[in-house]
Amino acid sequence: MQLALEEALKGKTNTYPNPRVGAIVVSNEKVVSTGYHHHYRGPHAEAIAVSKLKGAYTDATLYVTLEPCAHQGQNEPCTGLIDPKVFSKVVIGAKDPNKLAAGGSEQLLKKGIDVIGPVSEDECKDINRRFFTFHEKKRPYIILKVALTMDGFIAEEDGRSKWITNDKSRESVHILRSNCDAIIVGNNTIEKDDPNLTSHGKGKDPKIILFDKKFQDRSQMKVSQQDPIILKTSDMHKDSKENLDRMIEYLYKNSFQTLLVEGGGVTLTHFLNANLYDELHVYYAPKIIGKGLQFYHGKRSLEQELDLNLARVEKFGNDIKLTYIKK
Amino acid sequence: MQLALEEALKGKTNTYPNPRVGAIVVSNEKVVSTGYHHHYRGPHAEAIAVSKLKGAYTDATLYVTLEPCAHQGQNEPCTGLIDPKVFSKVVIGAKDPNKLAAGGSEQLLKKGIDVIGPVSEDECKDINRRFFTFHEKKRPYIILKVALTMDGFIAEEDGRSKWITNDKSRESVHILRSNCDAIIVGNNTIEKDDPNLTSHGKGKDPKIILFDKKFQDRSQMKVSQQDPIILKTSDMHKDSKENLDRMIEYLYKNSFQTLLVEGGGVTLTHFLNANLYDELHVYYAPKIIGKGLQFYHGKRSLEQELDLNLARVEKFGNDIKLTYIKK
Repeated sequence: MQLALEEALKGKTNTYPNPRVGAIVVSNEKVVSTGYHHHYRGPHAEAIAVSKLKGAYTDATLYVTLEPCAHQGQNEPCTGLIDPKVFSKVVIGAKDPNKLAAGGSEQLLKKGIDVIGPVSEDECKDINRRFFTFHEKKRPYIILKVALTMDGFIAEEDGRSKWITNDKSRESVHILRSNCDAIIVGNNTIEKDDPNLTSHGKGKDPKIILFDKKFQDRSQMKVSQQDPIILKTSDMHKDSKENLDRMIEYLYKNSFQTLLVEGGGVTLTHFLNANLYDELHVYYAPKIIGKGLQFYHGKRSLEQELDLNLARVEKFGNDIKLTYIKK
Repeated sequence: MQLALEEALKGKTNTYPNPRVGAIVVSNEKVVSTGYHHHYRGPHAEAIAVSKLKGAYTDATLYVTLEPCAHQGQNEPCTGLIDPKVFSKVVIGAKDPNKLAAGGSEQLLKKGIDVIGPVSEDECKDINRRFFTFHEKKRPYIILKVALTMDGFIAEEDGRSKWITNDKSRESVHILRSNCDAIIVGNNTIEKDDPNLTSHGKGKDPKIILFDKKFQDRSQMKVSQQDPIILKTSDMHKDSKENLDRMIEYLYKNSFQTLLVEGGGVTLTHFLNANLYDELHVYYAPKIIGKGLQFYHGKRSLEQELDLNLARVEKFGNDIKLTYIKK
């Protein structure tokens, strides 16, 4: 299964929104074929491993990091390619959380193939965090991003935040956006900063999600040129949790696998308080302003752990980016 | 000179409070001897390079990163060891800023030896920042250290800051202390935290510097057991700059080459506002508290650059330490 995981990682980020999957065929204790899902809409790992088989095997074992799919999607169902005359056993790393594709194990068993596993669920899920979060929690994978001064402010007192971080940091944000499906910022940020929220040509642009706001004309704002999705809200301030839930549900139903939340403080605080986040991306710039706007408007004690792992540290000139992932 | 600099670096931190110095002897375009200052009170780089010379040279060149000393300290003056029958030329990286030891170039010239340089002052100073700052600015090298929550607070609203950072981070602070000669924290911090301010056995303990405070018995505080130096002050709040200047002068006169300032906010703000700092050591822990005490009590704009280079990034579990050095 370790070899299958290594195969899976070769898919890099190209398989998105599909998961990265790797497969290995073993016969007489020898690896006789390998495969991985190269890119979205390309053939699945099992299909490649099977098609690369040379010679006649009658008692082979297929190791695959994710349960073979049982549905007709862009490709033929993988279970159909696993011939009981060739394979006596399939070992799976993790069950498929996607209801549409699941059920592969049962189909294989019906064909007389032994199914073992899931044998390494944690590792197999870890390489596809966005995919598993989306299907298991039935909500998008949520990344909160914030750019701070050294003393923790997101803007000066008057709301001015252009620019806390340097060019290189901002470029990394554009790349981050290109890896997300949807992006949201609060209405205050739209009004104050008039951001364009695109990837600035670094890749695809995430879909902009806005809450409607009565009595306000946003036609002159940059986001209006990006064909944003505007969600009807109940009263913004009173029912923030309800609005949040409605948005999350909308994104899930419309297959937005990853949501990027770029502030400001009010919006970030809603997500933090609702415990709705999977990653926190924090930029610090070597500036000290003493007074300004905060990114968290609630109150917690030092004992309230956030349950975060510091997964990645990136240096952009004299700025730093810290990526925390929920444990 | 590049080779001499490489030699100098071999002294690591063992030469402190002396500078790191490296020396190379060249004859007929060949390196015939090398030396570096190994440790404080040990022989100087030039002395080692000269003593290692084998064979008779009459036209050698000595490259040394710092002007050879001209005074009798722990060792014989280096200028006395540089024999004009052997050396026709001495190339120096930087002039010696220490008034006591300076004057080497003049002595060498008197002996009929050519003196070239300083040829790479920036690089030679850079490997001995503390030493050069102390002698050139006539004040200790000042390191400000602060431990912050992710959102930039040094403590909860009631002053409680135990503990923001984790064990590993705090251990690194103990090591930092062992590399400093003096340490100061404000009176508020003494009263609130009752810190011991030692290196916890990681090396030497820095000398604790306190400002006196009328009407207060500190005999029960941990710092009182460390034989602190208590400086008389004028009114603490009105004349903070005067008190600061007096302390700096005291430390310089008493040969404290490096001062560590460990907070709290009032004290750090005094140093920041007076532009009295050479390094900023900032720890961030993955905690968000929303309300608390700030580390900077002044007000600056985003355009006011701090002129800092992010020199080092260290990960301690899920905490991070950023070391900024003044440009």
